[in-house]
Amino acid sequence: MKKIINDAEQVVEEMLQGAVLAHPQYVKRVEGFNVLVRANSPVQGKVALVSGGGSGHEPSHAGYVGRGMLDGAVAGAVFTSPTPDQVYEAVKVVDGGKGVLLIIKNYTGDIMNFEMAAEMAEADGVAVAKVVVNDDVAVENSTWTTGRRGIAGTVFVHKIAGAKAETGADLAEVQRVAEKVIANVRSMGMALSPCIVPAAGKPSFTLADNEVEIGMGIHGEPGTHRESLRTADATAEHLVGKILDDLSVNAGEEVAVMINGLGGTPLMELYVVNRKVAALLAGKNINIAKTYIGNYMTSLEMAGFSVTVLKLDGELKELLLAPADTPALVQF
Amino acid sequence: MKKIINDAEQVVEEMLQGAVLAHPQYVKRVEGFNVLVRANSPVQGKVALVSGGGSGHEPSHAGYVGRGMLDGAVAGAVFTSPTPDQVYEAVKVVDGGKGVLLIIKNYTGDIMNFEMAAEMAEADGVAVAKVVVNDDVAVENSTWTTGRRGIAGTVFVHKIAGAKAETGADLAEVQRVAEKVIANVRSMGMALSPCIVPAAGKPSFTLADNEVEIGMGIHGEPGTHRESLRTADATAEHLVGKILDDLSVNAGEEVAVMINGLGGTPLMELYVVNRKVAALLAGKNINIAKTYIGNYMTSLEMAGFSVTVLKLDGELKELLLAPADTPALVQF
Repeated sequence: MKKIINDAEQVVEEMLQGAVLAHPQYVKRVEGFNVLVRANSPVQGKVALVSGGGSGHEPSHAGYVGRGMLDGAVAGAVFTSPTPDQVYEAVKVVDGGKGVLLIIKNYTGDIMNFEMAAEMAEADGVAVAKVVVNDDVAVENSTWTTGRRGIAGTVFVHKIAGAKAETGADLAEVQRVAEKVIANVRSMGMALSPCIVPAAGKPSFTLADNEVEIGMGIHGEPGTHRESLRTADATAEHLVGKILDDLSVNAGEEVAVMINGLGGTPLMELYVVNRKVAALLAGKNINIAKTYIGNYMTSLEMAGFSVTVLKLDGELKELLLAPADTPALVQF
Repeated sequence: MKKIINDAEQVVEEMLQGAVLAHPQYVKRVEGFNVLVRANSPVQGKVALVSGGGSGHEPSHAGYVGRGMLDGAVAGAVFTSPTPDQVYEAVKVVDGGKGVLLIIKNYTGDIMNFEMAAEMAEADGVAVAKVVVNDDVAVENSTWTTGRRGIAGTVFVHKIAGAKAETGADLAEVQRVAEKVIANVRSMGMALSPCIVPAAGKPSFTLADNEVEIGMGIHGEPGTHRESLRTADATAEHLVGKILDDLSVNAGEEVAVMINGLGGTPLMELYVVNRKVAALLAGKNINIAKTYIGNYMTSLEMAGFSVTVLKLDGELKELLLAPADTPALVQF
């Protein structure tokens, strides 16, 4: 295992320390917890948003803590749900008196632990609402999931619900908008290579020299099938086809697109993929309001990508394009 | 070779098409050339900035085309300098009447071709100035370089000279500021793994299972030495030591830091590195004005990173922190 770390057992702790040192203008640590919150938390009079999950998906989720997106992010061990006490602490710290929305990716451990945290916070008198993101159309049920997995589409939920919260909307309204994103977002990915969880020290599976996994999850969960590597165009066409089989988008309607790198994929290849994705949507007279290309929801150093399509209406588009300022990726 | 492409010979063309489709609000293609320029080019009454070089370093350089940074980026074949006619075309298209600054990384082919383009443009009456970035402290002279190589520090030149140009400064002033950045920026990197140029189809070198290359260039040029992988902290200490041996920064002075991923490195590891880099600088009472972490100047899917330190004065700091808006990475 070749990794730029000091100690596999300390990698999350040291990552969080490095992140706070890098971005003090955006985030601060909740002492004693693996929780990063906005530097100015709690923001009074605004619904607060908390997300998180296992580490290894950076910049998700701490990279999205900042104005217009999340208020707090909880980091579990690599690919492991954070415990309820960690989530509970995040909720308490960010609550500005208007309640807290938990944005949960659909993994059994995450749901159980975030729900337990919500109950603890509610017992303290904090209003808590929850949404569960399940955008991955690849498979029903999976290694750690009942139903569909939550993957890169989660970032659109952060963005749009975060923008809604900045308007001063109440908890029910922010939750409604988050649910609307979830109802309209679909993703599917593929992987060229596995990744190595530091504490495990070896890949969790292997692929042959010319083999890829279609529909794989962001922790290396099995997808729909393995196949020989095809062209970028053929792969893009397959993924977009699966997405649009599931998400009805009519000619003349508008979408946002994310071509998400899994951590080890050159940006060059993501642009090659986007060329085909854009052409496929144009061929259906679907309009692209904005395209996001880069590493938004990763799987450590896994090579591969996912495509996400979010169907927009006027409300979602306005909130998607509203300003935000977060560490991921710090722009100039 | 596992890559998400269609045809190794078409990868730059298809990447450029994908980039224009993704970011029409930022960039447009100069038809018939591998040149992306601002969507509103030429910007009248402003010095224009052009950079570029071989492809494979994305988001460099087209990702930095936008308000407050570059006006145009020229893409050569992978790891191959663009030809003079391509650079000449970029210069002609972006000139808004106040002249054009060429920002060149110190590789022999780039210098020759950009200089030839400058002569062609000057013959047409366009005022052209040039700066050469050579921030890599690892080695003097290299596979394609006389002197030191230009690497990730180039992005700070784009940013700061770009901000100066937005103020309406004349060509000599923009060049002066760019030279000041170059005089004050130093970088050094290390690699865990090679990358594969699509048209070659195989890695240009190999490293043993636990071996890394220290001081390697962004095209895989040899560094100072190979060694067994050490801890992130030990490696960061070595790189920062080499940088500060060369760049005199006194206690109480201020710097910007970039922890740059080479394309295949998880963001988690870059944050672990930053933890040590920040501690080393704090130990010398050097103040960090801003830290940039992510994939800014890559080498396809190479795993590894570089550290860049830029010494700031009041002028450089103000220009560094001035607003900019470019596709890389498109933020929300």
